[in-house]
Amino acid sequence: MAFCNITGKSLNSGVKARRSAVVSAVEPKWNLAKLDVDAILKEVKFNADGLVPAIAQQFDSGEVLMMAWMSAESIVETLKSNRAVYYSRSRKELWRKGDTSGQHQHVHDFQVDCDGDTILLTVDQLGVACHTGRRSCFYFAVRDNGLEEILPVVIDPKKLYS
Amino acid sequence: MAFCNITGKSLNSGVKARRSAVVSAVEPKWNLAKLDVDAILKEVKFNADGLVPAIAQQFDSGEVLMMAWMSAESIVETLKSNRAVYYSRSRKELWRKGDTSGQHQHVHDFQVDCDGDTILLTVDQLGVACHTGRRSCFYFAVRDNGLEEILPVVIDPKKLYS
Repeated sequence: MAFCNITGKSLNSGVKARRSAVVSAVEPKWNLAKLDVDAILKEVKFNADGLVPAIAQQFDSGEVLMMAWMSAESIVETLKSNRAVYYSRSRKELWRKGDTSGQHQHVHDFQVDCDGDTILLTVDQLGVACHTGRRSCFYFAVRDNGLEEILPVVIDPKKLYS
Repeated sequence: MAFCNITGKSLNSGVKARRSAVVSAVEPKWNLAKLDVDAILKEVKFNADGLVPAIAQQFDSGEVLMMAWMSAESIVETLKSNRAVYYSRSRKELWRKGDTSGQHQHVHDFQVDCDGDTILLTVDQLGVACHTGRRSCFYFAVRDNGLEEILPVVIDPKKLYS
C-alpha cells in the first residue's frame, strides 16, 4: 500500500462535503448470499449493555468520520443492507444513519479488532457525517488556547433536519 | 485537502511496519508552555467509569490503528508528554503505550468530537500498534465465510514482550 500524502494539517482539516448524490458506487467486500452472520456475531464482544463501539472511516480518504455504538441487531442490518446502522443510546432504538438527514453511509468494509470489542466500518459517507453539518464529528482540536474548531460547516443543519 | 489514492482493498491491507526508529519527527500542534489543560478537560464527557474512548490514527497514512480508553490523568499526560498514554481497564492503571513493547505513539493531534465523548488522536506509530505484531488492531474483516485475517504479522510478538 502506498502511503498517501496527508501531512501538515489534520487529516480532517479543510475537507469539503464532496458528494451530494444519494447513491454510491461502493460495494461491500462480501457476498450477501454467502454471508455467515452468526459466525461474525460470535466473535464480537458486546459490553454489559449489549453494545460495541463502531468507528466510521471514509474508505478512500481515510477521514475518521464519527464513532457510534452497534447492537447485534444493528450489525446484522448493516451487513445485510450495506448501509451503516447504529444503535442510538439516547433514543434506545436502531439508528439507520441518514434516514432523517439523507446523509447515508454505504458500507465498504467491516473490520473487528484483535480482542473483538471494537468495530471499524469503512464507508462511503454521502455529504456529511456530523449533525452540525460538518464532514466529520471530530472538529474540535487542541490548540494553545484550549479546543478550537478546525472544520467548516458545509451543509446548513437546518437543511439536514427540516 | 487532496484525497489520497487508497482504494480497492482495505485501508489497512498490506501495511508493513515502516518504522523501526525509536524517535519521530512529529511534533504536536500545541505549544506546551501555553497549553490550557483544564479548558480541554472541561469539554470532555467521561463515562460512569471516568473514561472516554480514544481512537488512534496514523497521522499521514490515515490507518486506524486501535481504540483504547483514556482517563483525565492519561489525557493530561498525553498532552504534556506528546506520547499516547491510555488507561488500561484490565490492569486499572495508566498505560504508557510502548513502555513495554517499544512501539510508541508520538502524538500529532488531539481532537474531540461534537458531543465531547470520543477522542481522535493522530499519531506517528513506531513499528506496530497491535500486541499481535500487526500494524493495526483491526485485522479481522468480514468476508464470505465469516471473519478473515487481512493483515500480516510484521513483528514477532515474542520480540515485543521479551
